[in-house]
Amino acid sequence: MATDVPVALLGYGTVGAAVDRLLVENGDDIERATGHRLRVVRALVRAPARERPSPTEPGLLTADFAGIRDDPTIALVGEVMGGLEPTGGYVLELLRAGKPVVSANKQLVARRSAELFSAAAEAGVQLRFEASVCAAIPVIKVLREALVVTNVHRVLGIVNGTTNFILTRMGAGGPYAEALAEAQRLGYAEADPGEDVSGADAAAKMAILATVAFGARVTPDEVEVRGIERIRPAHVRAAHELEMVVRLVGGATLADGAFDVRVQPAFVDRHHPLAAVEGPFNAVMLQGDAIREITLEGPGAGGLETASAVVADMVSVVGTTGTGFLQNDACWRTLDRLPPGELRLPFYLHVEVDDRPGVLARVAERLAAEDVSVARLAQRQLSDGAALDIVTHEARAGGVATAAAALGRLDEVHGEPDVLAVISERGVD
Amino acid sequence: MATDVPVALLGYGTVGAAVDRLLVENGDDIERATGHRLRVVRALVRAPARERPSPTEPGLLTADFAGIRDDPTIALVGEVMGGLEPTGGYVLELLRAGKPVVSANKQLVARRSAELFSAAAEAGVQLRFEASVCAAIPVIKVLREALVVTNVHRVLGIVNGTTNFILTRMGAGGPYAEALAEAQRLGYAEADPGEDVSGADAAAKMAILATVAFGARVTPDEVEVRGIERIRPAHVRAAHELEMVVRLVGGATLADGAFDVRVQPAFVDRHHPLAAVEGPFNAVMLQGDAIREITLEGPGAGGLETASAVVADMVSVVGTTGTGFLQNDACWRTLDRLPPGELRLPFYLHVEVDDRPGVLARVAERLAAEDVSVARLAQRQLSDGAALDIVTHEARAGGVATAAAALGRLDEVHGEPDVLAVISERGVD
Repeated sequence: MATDVPVALLGYGTVGAAVDRLLVENGDDIERATGHRLRVVRALVRAPARERPSPTEPGLLTADFAGIRDDPTIALVGEVMGGLEPTGGYVLELLRAGKPVVSANKQLVARRSAELFSAAAEAGVQLRFEASVCAAIPVIKVLREALVVTNVHRVLGIVNGTTNFILTRMGAGGPYAEALAEAQRLGYAEADPGEDVSGADAAAKMAILATVAFGARVTPDEVEVRGIERIRPAHVRAAHELEMVVRLVGGATLADGAFDVRVQPAFVDRHHPLAAVEGPFNAVMLQGDAIREITLEGPGAGGLETASAVVADMVSVVGTTGTGFLQNDACWRTLDRLPPGELRLPFYLHVEVDDRPGVLARVAERLAAEDVSVARLAQRQLSDGAALDIVTHEARAGGVATAAAALGRLDEVHGEPDVLAVISERGVD
Repeated sequence: MATDVPVALLGYGTVGAAVDRLLVENGDDIERATGHRLRVVRALVRAPARERPSPTEPGLLTADFAGIRDDPTIALVGEVMGGLEPTGGYVLELLRAGKPVVSANKQLVARRSAELFSAAAEAGVQLRFEASVCAAIPVIKVLREALVVTNVHRVLGIVNGTTNFILTRMGAGGPYAEALAEAQRLGYAEADPGEDVSGADAAAKMAILATVAFGARVTPDEVEVRGIERIRPAHVRAAHELEMVVRLVGGATLADGAFDVRVQPAFVDRHHPLAAVEGPFNAVMLQGDAIREITLEGPGAGGLETASAVVADMVSVVGTTGTGFLQNDACWRTLDRLPPGELRLPFYLHVEVDDRPGVLARVAERLAAEDVSVARLAQRQLSDGAALDIVTHEARAGGVATAAAALGRLDEVHGEPDVLAVISERGVD
């Protein structure tokens, strides 16, 4: 590849403009590192004539996709426009035309990577997607290039900054609605926060991480998802009493040759690295044979942070040309999905009961009937009975759900028990 | 490079044997990722006939260095023998003979990287050294390949597991000697722990990290070092009262176009990611323009962990052949060392004084005279006076030292004030 590397962008919003600026401002750094100078020569937008916040070179913006695809001088394309269509079709055409592509699009990568990687492999060009997960945190590079021999069997992540900000805020006191409103005021949550608070955004990212870590395709539809909408100050207080914090945790686990990927609010032990992740930050913990566990933490969103990941991928593309492996799909096997009830985790149960003799025994019986064993139990008085806060040892998720339903049917139990996963064990011995 | 990649090792101790095993056991993973199969065909040891814990193939072990250097089929060498000589000479000869080298040797890399990289660049072969710093944590790869455009201006690290274990243990109660003895019993500290507890081991690692992060050579001799030998339970208690923990922290800072690299025990705010690093774990926080901060945490030592980093480097060498940049020295500029007194940090001061009117004013005067401003102050009774625990705002290290010396000369002050750095600010806004 020549020293001069003309680059095209699909999209020229906040991230696209930041990529352009980073390539100009850090041209010397990139040339020192790779021997190449990257510069944006064309950017696909819907309305090239529209006024932009930052002025652009005349001729940079274009609405003509074919002009980019068919320009033989364009050596590399950054996709920062988002959406599934027409973006997916564009990326496919570019790969087929022999152009390496760097994408920041989590939905596209999570849903169409098989097709995209097959086009990349056929054309012998790289497809990189670091910016699609956790912005500037280089977790894809670390998984694909540094942890090749570590058989990663578990990925735990706080991969959505909006929900982590809300939960951190609730940890300092105050209800969900107030924390959400503050997140919106500060720009950490959108006006319609559904994608974030429902866990859907985190699910797409966990699908990508599981796919790369396990070498087997996992789609967002195969991720068990529970959002944070129902987290109340009572959960935060209960967690605090147990020396834990509430976090929305994504977990991908390989067990018995099958995968389980889920996103759920969980109680996290305060000595666990994920408990220290505060505000809009993200973190991903990788557990594997030879490494025990490695945790990467950093800002999980932001225009500049995302752009820096796009540029890092571009630098890697020009720095590793001719290697013949990074264009290949990371997937090499098919794994079954573990039936969601089979995953083993410790759980937290909150049960409100009549305060009279024999009740505790009946609760304990229902748990024992499903092989759920109690690790910690605290009982306190309520005005109309007693509250039991229970932390179990590792138990089948399905067994815990069945036990909780059975408890809910007991006369002595008020309403439905509340059940949340607990993250406490580390990959260390 | 061919599909079959014969590899030689210099050294075949715990790490070497683990590298051999990882390459065999994960041969399929590596081939899938890179198209190459790596296998150890020769390992240099002093006494090939000596009995080993794990049996080796006949002919694998050799005492003949020239036989490795001159064997044209050997495509890659892993240096896991340690020491400066003869190791340094061997690595130079191998690079000059056109063989890429992967080294796990922090002293060699910290002290002779200029010479080694110049040989590598001349021969056009890669020299990688991930395993020389923090074992399996891929901080060198992230700095060199993912953070090319982020202008990292500060590196903060807990890079010595022995001292972190001791300080974590002291945090749970008990004196230094007891914690050290326990570390020795558990194999986290050597019989002669001098290299670790003095900060010398951490200094070599910080020199390497600073060199790579700033693109300018920093040698271990240019690192300001203070060990943990004088940390007492009183420090741990004082930190706890301030909601901090005591850690041995390496800091590399770019300020006013000059570098400051130091290793010192410090009070770390409990909300800081480094405060969550417990036991023998390591963590490195990288602060830069486009990324704000990224923290990598994981096991910082261990035979298997170190071997996995060596193998990751080997995989990277065969996965990126022909790129023409990773054989180059990361250094491209010369920076002055910041005079050690010029670095600005917050500090903790413990001063014991007579309990009578006017003393606090005199202490405050001495601080103000050196432009040291107080952020937090707590006073408590002692049997023979009062103790002042002071946390300052950011101040010149030299100013704080001068003020502390001046305080020590006051009649009202008992003994010398105790001074420790404070790590509290994050790179976030």
